[in-house]
Parts: sequence; C-alpha cells; structure tokens
Amino acid sequence: MNTGILIPLLDYASVLVFALTGALVASRSQLDLVGFIFFATLTGIGGGTLRDLLLGGPVLWLARPGLILMAAAAAVLVFFTAHLLESRYRALLWLDACALAVAVPAGVGVAIDAGVSPVIVVAMGIITATFGGLMRDVVANEVPLVLKQGELYLTAAFGGALAAVLLSHAAMPRSVALIACGVVTFILRAGSLTWGWRLPVYRSRPPRV
Amino acid sequence: MNTGILIPLLDYASVLVFALTGALVASRSQLDLVGFIFFATLTGIGGGTLRDLLLGGPVLWLARPGLILMAAAAAVLVFFTAHLLESRYRALLWLDACALAVAVPAGVGVAIDAGVSPVIVVAMGIITATFGGLMRDVVANEVPLVLKQGELYLTAAFGGALAAVLLSHAAMPRSVALIACGVVTFILRAGSLTWGWRLPVYRSRPPRV
Amino acid sequence: MNTGILIPLLDYASVLVFALTGALVASRSQLDLVGFIFFATLTGIGGGTLRDLLLGGPVLWLARPGLILMAAAAAVLVFFTAHLLESRYRALLWLDACALAVAVPAGVGVAIDAGVSPVIVVAMGIITATFGGLMRDVVANEVPLVLKQGELYLTAAFGGALAAVLLSHAAMPRSVALIACGVVTFILRAGSLTWGWRLPVYRSRPPRV
Repeated sequence: MNTGILIPLLDYASVLVFALTGALVASRSQLDLVGFIFFATLTGIGGGTLRDLLLGGPVLWLARPGLILMAAAAAVLVFFTAHLLESRYRALLWLDACALAVAVPAGVGVAIDAGVSPVIVVAMGIITATFGGLMRDVVANEVPLVLKQGELYLTAAFGGALAAVLLSHAAMPRSVALIACGVVTFILRAGSLTWGWRLPVYRSRPPRV
Repeated sequence: MNTGILIPLLDYASVLVFALTGALVASRSQLDLVGFIFFATLTGIGGGTLRDLLLGGPVLWLARPGLILMAAAAAVLVFFTAHLLESRYRALLWLDACALAVAVPAGVGVAIDAGVSPVIVVAMGIITATFGGLMRDVVANEVPLVLKQGELYLTAAFGGALAAVLLSHAAMPRSVALIACGVVTFILRAGSLTWGWRLPVYRSRPPRV
Repeated sequence: MNTGILIPLLDYASVLVFALTGALVASRSQLDLVGFIFFATLTGIGGGTLRDLLLGGPVLWLARPGLILMAAAAAVLVFFTAHLLESRYRALLWLDACALAVAVPAGVGVAIDAGVSPVIVVAMGIITATFGGLMRDVVANEVPLVLKQGELYLTAAFGGALAAVLLSHAAMPRSVALIACGVVTFILRAGSLTWGWRLPVYRSRPPRV
C-alpha cells in the first residue's frame, strides 16, 4: 500500500470517528443541530490542526474542505440516531478508542514524512490523537479522558507511537509501521476498557492495609 | 466602500467590543485591573488570532499593536464604570451579540481575500466570531455561550457567514456581502435574545405528554 | 554574557521548572506516570510554543527535542518524590513563581530578537509565562492562577516585561535587561506570596463599613 494514500486515509478516518464522538458529547449537552456540527468539527479536526500548525505545514482541512463536510455529515447522523443507542457514554468511549487508533498513525505518519526526530514523531502521534478529544471535553465541561486515573489512554497512544518509531528504525515499510501503530494503540486502549488494564497511579501516601 | 478599509475596520470593531465583554467577565470574577486587561485582550484578539494562524498569514495584532492598546483601554473603561450597569450579564450578552455581528464578517472577509473555498470561508467566519468568547469563558470558568441549549449563537454566526458566501457568489460587491453578513448575524442573535427564537434541541427521549 | 546563549538557557530553565509544576498538578489528580509526563510537557512547553507560533518562527521543541525529554525526566522525578513534600500546593506555587521569573525574560528576549514593537514584546513576555500554566490548570480542572483575585501574578509578569522594555530603550545590554526582567518578576510574585502584596480588585458595590 502506498503511504501517499495511507496518510490521507488515516486523516479522513480519524476526522470521521472523532466527529462522531464530538456529536455524542453534543447530545449529552442537549445542543441543537448546529451545536452538534460545531462539536463534531472541533473534535474531528482539532488534533490534526494542531499537528499541522506545529509542523508549519498547511492545515489539513484547508487543503481538503471535504473533511469539514464529512464531520458535519457525521453530526447530522448522530443528531437523528443517537437515541437508538443503549448507552451513549459507552458508545463514546469505544468510538474514541477507534479514533485514537487511527489518529496516532495519522500523526506519526505526517511527522515521519516531515523528517523530524523520533521524540517529535512520538509527540506528534500523541498530540494528533488526544487534542481533538481534549478540546471537546474542555469546551463541553466534561472530565477529559486524559484525567481518568490509571486507564491506558495516553499510554495507549504512546505505545502505538513508540511501536511505529521502532519499526521504522528497523527498516520496515512505512505502511507496516503505521498499521502496527494503530493495532498496538487499539489493543492497549481496548484492553483497558474491557479487562481493566491499568498503570499504577500516584498516591501521596501508601494505602492502608 | 473599499474592502481594503472595511476589513481592518471590522477587525478593530470586533476587538473593541469583544474586549468589553472580556472585561465584563473579569468584573464578574472580581479581578484587578491587570486581570481586566488580560481578559479583554484574550477575548478581543483570540478569534482573529486563530483565524490568522490557520490561514498562515501574519497575526492581526503583530501588524497592528494598536489593537492591544485598544483592548487595554476598553478594560480600563469597564474597570471604572461597570458598577453603573444595572445588569452586567445582560450587558455582556448584548455586547457579545454586537461583537459576533462584526467578527463574522471580519473572518469571512479575510478568508475570501485569501481565496479559500466557500466551506472554509464559512468556517473562518464562525471561528473568528466564537473562539475569543470561548477562550474567555473556558479560562474564566463560565459556561461557554456555545453550550446554551437551542439559543441561536453558533447558528447566527453560521447564517451570517452563509449569507456572505451566497451574496459573493451572486457577484455582489464585497462590501455589500460583508455588511449583509453582519446584519443577518445580528438579527438572528438579537431575535434569539429578545423573542426567544430557538432551534429544536436534541432529546434522548421524547418528552412526556 | 552572550544573549545568543542566554535565551536558550532561559527556555531550558523555564521548560524545566514549569514541567515540575505540571507534574505536581498531575500528582494532585492522582495520574499515572504517562499522565505526569503529559502534564509536565504541556505545562513546560505550552507558553513558548504559543509564542513561537504567534511570531511565525519554528517552535522551540522542534528545534530542540531535548526539551521534551527534559520535561519527561522532571515528571519521573516528581512521580517518585512528590510524597516527600510537606505541601504539594505550596511547592507548586513557589515553583510556578520561579518558572514565571524565567519564562517572562524567555518570551521578552525572543520577541526583542524578532524586532517587534514594545507592546508586542510585553505581550510575548506575558504569553510565554502564563499560557503553559493556564493550559495545565484548564485541562486539570484547577482554578487558573490568573483568576486569583488581587494576587500579583499577571502583574508580576507585566512588571518584569515592562522593566525589560524600558532598560532596552535605555540602551542597556540585552543580558542586563533580561536578568532585571526576571528579578522584577520574581520579587513582585514572591512579595505577593510572602507578604500578601495585592492590587485592588473590582467590586461592584463599595464594601459596607
């Protein structure tokens, strides 16, 4: 698979799935249709926009305005169908996990193409994957997912980005590294949601026995 | 009227009026004079700054530092006169409506000049008009106006931006399109504040009869 | 002392000390190690990143990825030692004061080198010094320090930046102006923390006698 196609594909998928999560948050705040579109777009393009601003490149949706229309379409879809979901919060968590798993390779791929150092590649993967959801949660007054104690969220993004950097340095093809990146991210996040995988959290004092 | 003059004028008016709203929010948080200036400046230039960063142009207040001094002057004015207002929150809502009505055409005008596609023009109008107020509300721990259920806020900005794009495509002069943009935005927002114009909001279940 | 060395030094010191404050906030939210690294990095590089984006220059940590590793190392240090502190909040306030006192000259120095007008120089000093902490507090749901009524926080940054601009105009060497900037900032902030120096805050009505 040509990386020249893979990265735009990852951007589209990431915008789409994050847009769905933004619209779900809008539904939890009981907004109107334009509010749904605002949150879907903010969440969908937030992370990639920050990545592109930091790397000094053109912002993804200026080059492809179709991304905005796609996010808006996702918002309309959720506006008319969210009541069919049994638990919107559960759907939100799982969609966010999928979005994470495509956004980390989207960030990593663009950063590798920009020729930056491995530390920056990892940082761009994490930024692309987390800042859209972070803006969504801060604006909507929800507790940001990055604050969930011990859950593998940032860690999932970090693990995926690290896998991509290691595979790239092992001279694997770009597309293999990016797909592995998404798989590692998803497995870590899904394992945390399903089986409660956790990292030890900071405690100021040892818990009583 | 020359568009070359109109767009800087809109930027000045938008910074001034948004700065007044920022200072009013500072007064609600009982800050000192420097805190007033901080919030006035953040609110005044926030939206335009994001617009210019996204479009890759020079940021408005780097080219015209007078904008910062004007926002600071607005903050000083509010610091010494806000106690004369009967309701600061009401003044805040109406000033914010005026700011919205000048900031949408300010964003739309710059975007049209940058030669971007209609979808991006609309997005830039909304971003320029809403992100200053959004930063103000997020930093000050106020409920963002974009979260007000059903009120025409984002919708007012969207309507105004859409009007400008349609009139531009109908080959109307730039200045007519921008003035119509501001008028449509203000009428929608003022109608929502005065007569309670609303959009239907999302409800997970139909209300009981 | 060569300014060519001084400004990167100030950037390193500012990232390091702000990173420590970010990690302390992560400890107050009981996050895991990756959460500590996220907050340390966000806080450490947030202000300088915004400064560089606004000035159109390359972002500081793209040029020097070591800044990210240093912030991560600070996070690891705090993760394993924060329980030794008697009061994490007190440590946070004083570290933040130190960070302020190095970040204001870091912002002012870069802005003077960019040849912008004095108003912008002052603004860049304040932005560099306050936005890292602001992002930290907004994301972690803490009350931003800029909202502390009457405390000299923004005022300390403003005073330091003003001192640097005045000394620069009085043809003092750049390094003297920047060191004086840091000293003025720290004295104002430390005076406010230690002796309760305050500015009068806005009150909608005069207090009863």
